Amino acid sequence: MQFLSDNTAAVHPLVWEAMRAADSSDAGYDGDRLSQQLDAAFSDVFERGCAALWVATGTAANCLALSTMVQPHGAVVCHHEAHIEMDEGGAPGFYLHGAKLLLAEGEDAKVSVDSVKAVLDPIRDDVHQVQAHALSITQASESGCVYRPDELQALGELARARKLGFHMDGARFANAVAFLGCSPSEAAGPVDALSFGCVKNGAMSAEAIVFFDPDLAAVARYRRKRAGHLQSKGRYLAAQLLAMLKNDLWLTNAAQANAAARLIAEGVGDRLLHPVEANEVFCLLSADEREILRSQGFEFYDWGAYAARFVAGWDSKPEAAGALSRAIGRL
Amino acid sequence: MQFLSDNTAAVHPLVWEAMRAADSSDAGYDGDRLSQQLDAAFSDVFERGCAALWVATGTAANCLALSTMVQPHGAVVCHHEAHIEMDEGGAPGFYLHGAKLLLAEGEDAKVSVDSVKAVLDPIRDDVHQVQAHALSITQASESGCVYRPDELQALGELARARKLGFHMDGARFANAVAFLGCSPSEAAGPVDALSFGCVKNGAMSAEAIVFFDPDLAAVARYRRKRAGHLQSKGRYLAAQLLAMLKNDLWLTNAAQANAAARLIAEGVGDRLLHPVEANEVFCLLSADEREILRSQGFEFYDWGAYAARFVAGWDSKPEAAGALSRAIGRL
Amino acid sequence: MQFLSDNTAAVHPLVWEAMRAADSSDAGYDGDRLSQQLDAAFSDVFERGCAALWVATGTAANCLALSTMVQPHGAVVCHHEAHIEMDEGGAPGFYLHGAKLLLAEGEDAKVSVDSVKAVLDPIRDDVHQVQAHALSITQASESGCVYRPDELQALGELARARKLGFHMDGARFANAVAFLGCSPSEAAGPVDALSFGCVKNGAMSAEAIVFFDPDLAAVARYRRKRAGHLQSKGRYLAAQLLAMLKNDLWLTNAAQANAAARLIAEGVGDRLLHPVEANEVFCLLSADEREILRSQGFEFYDWGAYAARFVAGWDSKPEAAGALSRAIGRL
Amino acid sequence: MQFLSDNTAAVHPLVWEAMRAADSSDAGYDGDRLSQQLDAAFSDVFERGCAALWVATGTAANCLALSTMVQPHGAVVCHHEAHIEMDEGGAPGFYLHGAKLLLAEGEDAKVSVDSVKAVLDPIRDDVHQVQAHALSITQASESGCVYRPDELQALGELARARKLGFHMDGARFANAVAFLGCSPSEAAGPVDALSFGCVKNGAMSAEAIVFFDPDLAAVARYRRKRAGHLQSKGRYLAAQLLAMLKNDLWLTNAAQANAAARLIAEGVGDRLLHPVEANEVFCLLSADEREILRSQGFEFYDWGAYAARFVAGWDSKPEAAGALSRAIGRL
Repeated sequence: MQFLSDNTAAVHPLVWEAMRAADSSDAGYDGDRLSQQLDAAFSDVFERGCAALWVATGTAANCLALSTMVQPHGAVVCHHEAHIEMDEGGAPGFYLHGAKLLLAEGEDAKVSVDSVKAVLDPIRDDVHQVQAHALSITQASESGCVYRPDELQALGELARARKLGFHMDGARFANAVAFLGCSPSEAAGPVDALSFGCVKNGAMSAEAIVFFDPDLAAVARYRRKRAGHLQSKGRYLAAQLLAMLKNDLWLTNAAQANAAARLIAEGVGDRLLHPVEANEVFCLLSADEREILRSQGFEFYDWGAYAARFVAGWDSKPEAAGALSRAIGRL
Repeated sequence: MQFLSDNTAAVHPLVWEAMRAADSSDAGYDGDRLSQQLDAAFSDVFERGCAALWVATGTAANCLALSTMVQPHGAVVCHHEAHIEMDEGGAPGFYLHGAKLLLAEGEDAKVSVDSVKAVLDPIRDDVHQVQAHALSITQASESGCVYRPDELQALGELARARKLGFHMDGARFANAVAFLGCSPSEAAGPVDALSFGCVKNGAMSAEAIVFFDPDLAAVARYRRKRAGHLQSKGRYLAAQLLAMLKNDLWLTNAAQANAAARLIAEGVGDRLLHPVEANEVFCLLSADEREILRSQGFEFYDWGAYAARFVAGWDSKPEAAGALSRAIGRL
Repeated sequence: MQFLSDNTAAVHPLVWEAMRAADSSDAGYDGDRLSQQLDAAFSDVFERGCAALWVATGTAANCLALSTMVQPHGAVVCHHEAHIEMDEGGAPGFYLHGAKLLLAEGEDAKVSVDSVKAVLDPIRDDVHQVQAHALSITQASESGCVYRPDELQALGELARARKLGFHMDGARFANAVAFLGCSPSEAAGPVDALSFGCVKNGAMSAEAIVFFDPDLAAVARYRRKRAGHLQSKGRYLAAQLLAMLKNDLWLTNAAQANAAARLIAEGVGDRLLHPVEANEVFCLLSADEREILRSQGFEFYDWGAYAARFVAGWDSKPEAAGALSRAIGRL
Repeated sequence: MQFLSDNTAAVHPLVWEAMRAADSSDAGYDGDRLSQQLDAAFSDVFERGCAALWVATGTAANCLALSTMVQPHGAVVCHHEAHIEMDEGGAPGFYLHGAKLLLAEGEDAKVSVDSVKAVLDPIRDDVHQVQAHALSITQASESGCVYRPDELQALGELARARKLGFHMDGARFANAVAFLGCSPSEAAGPVDALSFGCVKNGAMSAEAIVFFDPDLAAVARYRRKRAGHLQSKGRYLAAQLLAMLKNDLWLTNAAQANAAARLIAEGVGDRLLHPVEANEVFCLLSADEREILRSQGFEFYDWGAYAARFVAGWDSKPEAAGALSRAIGRL
């Protein structure tokens, strides 16, 4: 009864199958038959032309995407709880050559037009101050909450008006689309680049960076190699991504994880810290209460001193989620 | 009859098996049971204590290793044909924050004590000139040739005397050990860090960086995350490495590739550009001759205007190697 | 009646004289007779061995000093209003190759042992989080306030205990010493490197980086050249520094500026935002009130929407300071 | 009788005068009256619109200029003896965030269209290889030789055809113009940015970066601050540059230095290594011969094992140059 992270989930059987089928190859790096299909496959998903590059991690996806938009003397506006700020070991500083992160506020780890303006407006056009070059948001957010299409449009307009690149960290983009029930394109909004997560959702080691601007993709191809992220047997990453897209496996998996999270949330009542819109449940629980849950076999992370985080994976069992929900309800 | 690259080889069945067995996990990143076994497994191989980190590519392995030895204002001495100089898209400049590569000469893409001194000696202790912080060599070299243990000792003494870190790019280290017939430790010599290649030798997406100095490894752990190379499902990389080490699969595979290369070399006669000591054969062939070979179904890369490179993989068929050898002999 | 900044002050006549006397030279860069005297001259001031390098700006001094203490994957703890965070155009990100600034709280733009601990303690020894490598404080602070010797000792102990380098931005160090009336060594405390400001205090284009650890100075010499800060006619910078030290001109100038600031403060009453301990006066003033002062010929910067900053230079006239004080009193 | 370097020359009296006149100021950084005149003053010199920024060193000028043209994953083509490759302590690696220098051949330290093509043509459009983003040449070259206007046009066409930025290191640009007797604009050719040297030619601490593309200048302003090169009393640098331009002092000084070099060259005969087109004389001289010259009071640097370099400054005495010439003739 493991709710530590969606990273501990297994690889989906269909992904395994696709990887095995990639064993025989015509070419190395991303010259193979499978890698060459990615642009078309993602263009289908997003109903417009895009270029898609595989990479092994979400950190690399985020930072490579941003490196195409942000010059070293610039900055990225993001939420103060954003993964790029909190959890990537300083990777943005590395990939962006010292560019800054400028931290915005917002409920549920989501920025708003107003909170982004509150960061941007005090910056004078003055060389003593670092200027913003891009806006990065997370869909679903670090609190498991989802930007609605109209919010994305408004943020996109702001980005365009301020001449900012617009990036989306979609480590849990699938969960957001499954929640919204809209098209992937609507859930992405007018971003220039999307880190399209798969590892948390049934893949083994492949994320996609989806560029809606081919010029950015051209830069990213060089930066990916320069960062040591161009795998020589890239066909195995392409195979994972194609398997995830095939027959909407990515959406099926995400819907399962979301459903498990909703099941957990049912018993949580007033303890909920954030609305449950994706596959994460943040829940006020005292240290004693957490101890009780752990003694019953539930695994999860503390979330500060007074709360816990439960993450459902694509393979979380509904029975386990239900049991957790009831156990919380009994506390 | 494919001799393009060892990167196009399949993943070995035992590696697949080990990966599948890693599906259920206790922890993410490198906290899992398998990743935790790496230090001990590599210490067994090298008969001394070492710390081993998985990464997905040889470029990342080389550059992360060097980043623990070279400050941004320093330099790395390497052969002018070294992979880090020629084929990594500027990754050393990225990982080392602008440190330089200082290029040494040498037959068969191997540096010598004298050729390294020829680079080092003219550098004055003067801030106008970039100072060397490390020496990096490739075992087996980019020409498929192998440093002997006494050569490694001599280079190691030079490195120590000049206070240089000592790194080995071992993308084909297995092939070198198989050729030398010595212990892995002798084939590595007194290096501080070794990029231990597996992807060209039957793995899918896992190389090891082996540190013989734990302080360097401690830095590398932070740098790996910062470079986006800490995979969240790292257990699948650890599984690959452990499978390669188990029962010396890495040496068996390399011996097979070396044998295929020797088979090819038999028909080559005077056309050989370099001794065949690993799994690569460099062969003088005119454009017309290459055309003839290709028309017979052999795939390989041109090597400049007058030569070709044939690379044997762990799964190269002896029959194909023999056929190629005879085809060259008939030219 | 100019109180905009100490940067608009003139160059002191004795500094001009020393520069002119440096016209004939024996050697370029820092090989000249004057540059060679700096270590001894600053060792006299600080009553212990130190190495001193000239640079042209405080930003370069701060960032070069920090670059000797902080690896690219690390971080610097500093006050959230620190110059390195607020006013250096991202220079720390450039010089430290993407290392982070971690921001501490504190009254009067001064950090405390507790506020630094509040930053350090939540950082786990975990590669997902950037680790602190140095602590940087400003003496006098960005609010014109001064660390007392016991505060410096306590911060130094914390830095030592946490294995942090300890740096002091002393753009207005002279003003702090003049205020404290203690020795320069006491006013610096146990820092490893001090940016010793002169440009705001009567020099033209020379600051010193004073290293109390010779190993750090050795690195800084290479980094200075690499940053394009090794001037070929460095003797003119050395001349400025030596002139500032001679007969304690630096302290005389600072005392004059401090006195002018105290004069201003006399009329300010409850409007003071911070104690006036150096040469800056921060004063609550409405937009209308500021307008009145400007119409009377006083020049100064707004400090947010409700306040103004008045800075006294070494050449501020007591009469002007008195006039300003009375003008504020009359509001 | 000092011919070590033009860096040891004194500051010209008219430059001193202009600096003293800058003592009273209206604004800091580059907001002052003098800095604001630079664009117009240089536009007059070059007979077309340009933007000019002061910096303290040639290294900073070169690297900041290049940083506006070269992305971190790119490269600069330059001569293998170029100052940026040989003498700047790795500054291009720092300022360009790890971009490479690609080294071209050429007589007299000058590249040619053919030698640049010999570097560019083998580079495939392949992420494994670093792509060139700019071409940088030195006018006058490191061997004291001068590009003719038609050579500059040809190189400019090549740069444009290959989409390269075009930069000129003009540390001795004044000497080149004085030699060519053409307009400054013709001597600069179609470069995008020029490092306009003054420190070797009578100034104290001011070089100009002249941008013929305003977009590049806009980036450079941010990069200059970020590199700690925005001096707070920048008016003293602007004063130096304006004094150098006034009444063509820069050309007068350069003509004097060139004349002194030609005087030296008269006695050199077959010993000359390069044509003397600027203010440097490279001369074959054995160790014994150099010893004899030094015993006669001449100061200069060895140039490898078999030669010496003599550099004339704006203030070199014709008598001393003549004496040196005769002393070499007597050897």
